[in-house]
Order: sequence, then structure tokens, then C-alpha cells
Amino acid sequence: MADHGELRDRVFEANRELVRAGLVVLTFGNVSGVDREEGVLAIKPSGVPYEELRPEAIVVVDLETREIVAGDQRPSSDTPTHLVLYRRFEEVGGIVHTHSRFATAWAQSGRDLPCLGTTHADHFRGRVPVTRALAREEIHGEYEERTGDVIVEAFERGGLDPLEIPAALVVSHGPFAWGHDVADAIENAIALEAVAELALHTLVLKAEASALDDDLLQRHFSRKHGPGAYYGQRR
Amino acid sequence: MADHGELRDRVFEANRELVRAGLVVLTFGNVSGVDREEGVLAIKPSGVPYEELRPEAIVVVDLETREIVAGDQRPSSDTPTHLVLYRRFEEVGGIVHTHSRFATAWAQSGRDLPCLGTTHADHFRGRVPVTRALAREEIHGEYEERTGDVIVEAFERGGLDPLEIPAALVVSHGPFAWGHDVADAIENAIALEAVAELALHTLVLKAEASALDDDLLQRHFSRKHGPGAYYGQRR
Amino acid sequence: MADHGELRDRVFEANRELVRAGLVVLTFGNVSGVDREEGVLAIKPSGVPYEELRPEAIVVVDLETREIVAGDQRPSSDTPTHLVLYRRFEEVGGIVHTHSRFATAWAQSGRDLPCLGTTHADHFRGRVPVTRALAREEIHGEYEERTGDVIVEAFERGGLDPLEIPAALVVSHGPFAWGHDVADAIENAIALEAVAELALHTLVLKAEASALDDDLLQRHFSRKHGPGAYYGQRR
Amino acid sequence: MADHGELRDRVFEANRELVRAGLVVLTFGNVSGVDREEGVLAIKPSGVPYEELRPEAIVVVDLETREIVAGDQRPSSDTPTHLVLYRRFEEVGGIVHTHSRFATAWAQSGRDLPCLGTTHADHFRGRVPVTRALAREEIHGEYEERTGDVIVEAFERGGLDPLEIPAALVVSHGPFAWGHDVADAIENAIALEAVAELALHTLVLKAEASALDDDLLQRHFSRKHGPGAYYGQRR
Repeated sequence: MADHGELRDRVFEANRELVRAGLVVLTFGNVSGVDREEGVLAIKPSGVPYEELRPEAIVVVDLETREIVAGDQRPSSDTPTHLVLYRRFEEVGGIVHTHSRFATAWAQSGRDLPCLGTTHADHFRGRVPVTRALAREEIHGEYEERTGDVIVEAFERGGLDPLEIPAALVVSHGPFAWGHDVADAIENAIALEAVAELALHTLVLKAEASALDDDLLQRHFSRKHGPGAYYGQRR
Repeated sequence: MADHGELRDRVFEANRELVRAGLVVLTFGNVSGVDREEGVLAIKPSGVPYEELRPEAIVVVDLETREIVAGDQRPSSDTPTHLVLYRRFEEVGGIVHTHSRFATAWAQSGRDLPCLGTTHADHFRGRVPVTRALAREEIHGEYEERTGDVIVEAFERGGLDPLEIPAALVVSHGPFAWGHDVADAIENAIALEAVAELALHTLVLKAEASALDDDLLQRHFSRKHGPGAYYGQRR
Repeated sequence: MADHGELRDRVFEANRELVRAGLVVLTFGNVSGVDREEGVLAIKPSGVPYEELRPEAIVVVDLETREIVAGDQRPSSDTPTHLVLYRRFEEVGGIVHTHSRFATAWAQSGRDLPCLGTTHADHFRGRVPVTRALAREEIHGEYEERTGDVIVEAFERGGLDPLEIPAALVVSHGPFAWGHDVADAIENAIALEAVAELALHTLVLKAEASALDDDLLQRHFSRKHGPGAYYGQRR
Repeated sequence: MADHGELRDRVFEANRELVRAGLVVLTFGNVSGVDREEGVLAIKPSGVPYEELRPEAIVVVDLETREIVAGDQRPSSDTPTHLVLYRRFEEVGGIVHTHSRFATAWAQSGRDLPCLGTTHADHFRGRVPVTRALAREEIHGEYEERTGDVIVEAFERGGLDPLEIPAALVVSHGPFAWGHDVADAIENAIALEAVAELALHTLVLKAEASALDDDLLQRHFSRKHGPGAYYGQRR
């Protein structure tokens, strides 16, 4: 369909879910979803208050040409970051960007978010990486695209699988989370904020808290993900 | 009754109470209740979102055979932990597991939750113990059952009475709380989170905060529990 | 009137206001109001969940004889503390006791709540005192009455005026706040929790934060209280 | 129009927005808006509970004579501070004063709020300054007017543009935020509280967190503000 109604509905609902989950204030943050067969992504328009958002305001952008295919408004200014991630992380179907309070604090501190417990391991197979800082010329050039690049670079450098660790912290900026589809991306963004909060409180109690034992990490991740998963109903 | 409607209703309501009390995000956490005469427990199905939960989705499991007696879905993946606790703590009628933010931070820090004030003493007769870490072979074997075992072990090692200290922190994981019945277990889970938060804030103000005076601890616990209790209406 | 309907209504409403203000969880906390002409106080019944509370459940107690004058349930177990405060602080018309998270953390830390800013000075003319610990024999005797005594003692020892500093922190326990009437007591309990939170965050930012300049303290307190007050509408 | 209905409606709505955004408790805080053609400001009446506020209670004050032009109640006791800011910051159309928890903690700590990330840079072109303390004679004189003066002084001393850094922290007191109009001022007050919270959490994770790279700061501020802005829809 030319107007991509179902995709826009899904992205619209996901943006509202972000608000309900307490992950956004003001117009910070955005959600996108992709339709790889149609070769498009759908994303929140830039700077529109969440309470005024309507499904038909969701902007549809061609993955290749980057042109607007549907929608009357400008897409999120972070759209180039989303485009890079969809291009490089081929199994990703949805992306969420927020400035949520605890994940953003970790991003601002420049520290990887360590895996300190099973709540983390249920969603992320190890530490969530923080990106390197952008160089001056990257900032002054195609800034949002370079932001996508440094996320990809963090995964390549660390040998990380973006579907096993479906989030990154952009240094001095904030979190991006993603997933197989939009609902999965939202769930990962919520989980990321929860474990970022847990980790901060844990460090208050024990400054030198050490990372979760690797056997326990693998066990918990595998309970929920992969062929041997036994958490949840079949899906 | 074969379908254990009343027990399932109680467990269903308790799961919703967990959400209202702000103790869960996503599908983290679960509540169970037991009917010792019928020899069954009722527990939340695995990975089902709380807002989609219905009383008839609550799964009933035989305490001995571990077989599903009622319900179409898989029970919580933590069911073996609940089974161990019901078997070993014979007066317990309800169990709550959450990843609530402050109790989980204490679990991740590997520290016992100290009794720093009367709010704690009103519900827990002393520190809430953290378990030892599981050994590699325990993690790779019947992990959830071993999780129950280390909780029991913490109580035996410390000479603690599970109805006087109706909660434990599973190290690197999170809290389990319990009680005479499901409502009591929920109350203890809420109280645990409240005192975990109080204790963290207290340590920020005074790093070397010392445990509550034992006389005051006993006085407060006894105001609410045991033959001389004078808190609340008769019950 | 024999059933003190108006007083009970006021105390009932105040108890609900505590919940709305986020100062209580479970059944922690209680509010009382006094009618000095009738020689009675009205207080929450012990251990009754706030959502089940009804105006007619509020218990009325004679200030002198301590006998129940109206109401079918046991009054709050903290009633003797309230009685002491009404007897010794003669201008007080309402009292609020909570285990609110930040004020209680200060009480558990054993530190006076310092006046670190004008928000504090708007309500409390200087530091809010923490009581001394009760001695063993005080704990084992008339514990709740002695709790009232150590509050009074803290004010006498410090030369403090209970209507200028309408709150105290009972060490290892939690806050009591009061006021001219019940509404005023509720306002002071809410303000106490707010400034307790501000003070904790301030110490995180600056461990050696010093008390507010005394001139500024007096100026702010006097804006709202006393003959030269110019904050608010005439009242 | 003599009764300035539209301006009062806007200021009324903005005061309610403050409550919805969680920036106020009790009667702390106030919002004003200006109509420079008519030479008046409209402001919350002093000490009126937010839930009782009505549009017709908003007080209108002449910018020059300081006389009440419309409204039956006393204007906020902080009105002289607002008057100074409107007089000295000529492009400002709305002002918000709160005692919000994190911005006030920074004010109480006496520290400038550093720019630690892009969330900050999206709204404030660099650190938000804290004022100097008032001298004894300033406190005892026209205190509220002097409070306005030290805000202006902080901007002059630092060579700061009040529309590029639309907020200040009054030391030991709390934040003032402002903007082109009332809605913009509210947005900046919300953003200020959000970044104050982020900055505090960041310092917990990394005590020596350094300010955002200046290139990135300028880039982010310019995405949203000025001739090259490309964030949001045209406005």
C-alpha cells in the first residue's frame, strides 16, 4: 500500500508507549519501524509534542533515496542515524531513541553499562557499549549519520551482535535501542532504562560491583532467546 | 474444585496488585499461591504481559508431580524455585518474585539488607539475607530449583525463621518475598522494596549507618507479630 | 456533638491527602486532629488500609482519660505519642506521622535535617531536630509515650519553638509533623518530605554543603509566618 | 482589553502545566507572562493552591507602576523578581519559578549546572549559572527585587545571552526559567529539571565528568535554535 497505514499505526502506537513507560519528556526521543519489502521506514515527525501526534503524522521515508514517501511534516532530525542502523543491522525492524534519565546518565558518564545482574542478562548478552566521541569534522559534517556510524563501529570493534545486545549508548548523548520489530525495540528500550537504574543504585551500594558471572549471564540470556529458550509462551 | 477458581482469582489479583504498587516493569516478576489441602500452587504464566493477564490464564501445578493441573499456558519459568520454597517453608502460603528497583540493587550488590530502622523491623525481624552465588554446575543444571535451594540454605545457615524474615535477596538476581498467604506475601514484597529504598538513602547520608538497636527491633516486630501484638485490628 | 463528625471528617480527609501526596505505602503513617474544647483527639484506626478507610472508622479518644469516645476499632498504636505531643505542645491542632522515604532516611541516619535553602526556611525556622535514642527501659516500658517525650525533649534541649519548627525526626524511626490544625500539619509533612529530598540531593552534589545564611533564613520564614508575613492571601 | 483575558488564560494554563509536569508541590512556584504592548504582566496569586486556581484569579500588574490592574488577590510575593527580569531581559515573554527537586538541589549546592550532554545543549547554550549570594543589606531590603538583580548580574558577569541560556539558579533558593513566551518558558523549566537530574546521576557515575565538547554543544544548540535550525517543524 502506498500510504503504509499499518506500519505508521505501529510506529504511532510505539511512540505513545514510550510516553506511558515514562521514557520521554517534552519532545525528546523518537521511534521508527521498517518495512524491508517496501524499502521504507516510518518515523516520528520532528519536534511534535506526543499528545498532538496522530498516526497520519508519522513520516515515511525511502531507505535508499531518503526521500519522504508519505507524511506532510519533516521527519525526526535523527532520521539519518536510524537509516544507518537499518542499513548496517539487517535484522533490525524497529529503533527507539530516548533521553531517558538513567540510560542517558550512563551515556553522559562515558561508561559502558555493565551487566550486573540477571535482569540485564535477560535482555542484553553482556555490557551495553558506549560509543567513542565524534571527531570535530564528524560533528560539523553529516552529524546524525556519523552518530549511526559510531554505534556500528562500537559493535564491530567489540565483536558484538546487535540482536544479542540490542542497544548502545551514544556518548554525551543518550541511548538507542532496537529489536526484531517495533514492539521488541520498545521492550528493549524499557529494559535498558530499568537496568541502567539498577546499575546506578548498585554502584551506590558497592562502588566496585563486578560484572555478572558469565555462566549465569549465558544461562539467563538463553532462557529467553535462541533455540533452547524456555521463558514465555512460544512465539 | 477441579479448576481451583478461587485460588487463581487470588493469584490473579495479586499479580495486578504488584503492578499497581510499581514493583514490576514489562513481564518481570510473578506471584504464586498455594492450596496445601489440594496439593497445588497457582502461578502466573511465563512472559505474559500483566495487562493481558486474565484469571483463567493462571496456571495450576501439582506440588508433587509438578504437572500442570489447570491452565493452557506454560507456568512461570521460576516455578521450580517456588516449588522448593513451598516444600521447605511449610507455613508459607504465597510467594512473590520481582525485580523491583531497590531490592534488586541490594541483590546485585551482594549485600544483606540491614535493618536500619523501625519500618524494617515492623516487617522483618532483622537483616534480609542475600544468598550465596550458585556454582557453575548449579547454573548449568536445574538452575531454578537450585535458586530455591540457596534461599533455604541462607535461612538454615543463619538460623533464620522464614516467617519472621519473609524475604530473601538472590544474589545478582533479585528479591523473593513470601507470607502466610498471597496477600501477606504482596505486603511483604511492598515493604521490602520500601525498606530497601530507605536503606540506600540512609547509606548516602551516613555510609557507616549501624543496625537498629536490638531491643527496638524486637519491640517493633512484636508490636505487629506474635501473641503480644497490638498493632492493627485483631485478625 | 457526641460523635464529633466534623473532626472525624477532617481527619479522614487528611489521611487520604497523605496517600495522594505519596507520603505513605501500605498502612504506614497516621494523622490525628484535636478538638481542645471537647477534650478529644480523632485518629486513624490501627493497621487499616487507606483505601478501606471511612470517616466513621476514625477513632475519637479522650485527651485525659485516653478512653475511646467514638469508633468501633482500636486507634493507631502511635496514639500515646500523639497524646504526649498535644499535651506538651499546646497550640498544636493536628499531627501527622509517616515513614516517607526521604525524611525517614534522615531519621535513620541519626542526623538533624539541616536548613540548606529557602524552601526549608519557608516552613521550618532552622534545622529539624532528630531525637536521642530511647534507652532500653524506655523501649520496654511505655514505648509510644516515651517516643513523644523524646520529641519534646529535643525541642526543650534545643530551645526550639514547636510552631516555628513544626516537625521532628524520631531517630531510627521516622518523621512527625504538626501544625495549628490538621491541614497545616499535612502541609508541613509534605514540605518536610520535599526539603528532606532536596537536602539529600544537595549533599550528593556538595558533601560539605553549609546551612543557609541566617539572615536569609529569617527573611524567608518571616515572609510566610508572623505579623509581617506577606506571602499568600490574608488568613 | 482591560481585563487581559487571553494573557490570564495563558498564564493560568501554564501554572497547571507546571503541576502536570511534576515541577511543583504545595504552592511552591509561579508562572508569569507579559504583554509588552499593554505594559503589563500576569502572574499567579500568592499562596493559592494550584487545584483552586481559576483564570480570573490570575493577577495583572503594570510593568511601570507595579500597581494591580486586574485581579482581586495579592500577586505572587516573587513578583518584583519577575518585574526586574522583564525590564532587563527585553525579549523575554514568560517566566517560570519553581522549587523543582533537582534544579533546586543544584541551587542549594551553589554550583553552576554544567552542560554534560546534548539534552542540555538542545536547550541551554552552556552551563546554567548560579547567582552570587545576596549581601545582608540586600536580604533586609527589597529582597525580591535584589533576587532579580543578581540573576541579571550573573548573565552580565558571564557575558551570557538570556535567550541562549534561558534559566538561572538562585543560590540557596531555586531555579528561574524563561522564554520568548509563556509556553517556551514552561518548556525550558521542564528541560532544566530534566538536565539537572541527568547531571546529578552522571556525577554519581563519574565524579569528574567533564563538560560537553564545545563543537557538539554548538551543533546541538544550533539544530534547534537560530537561522540554521533543522529540528522541529517551521515555527
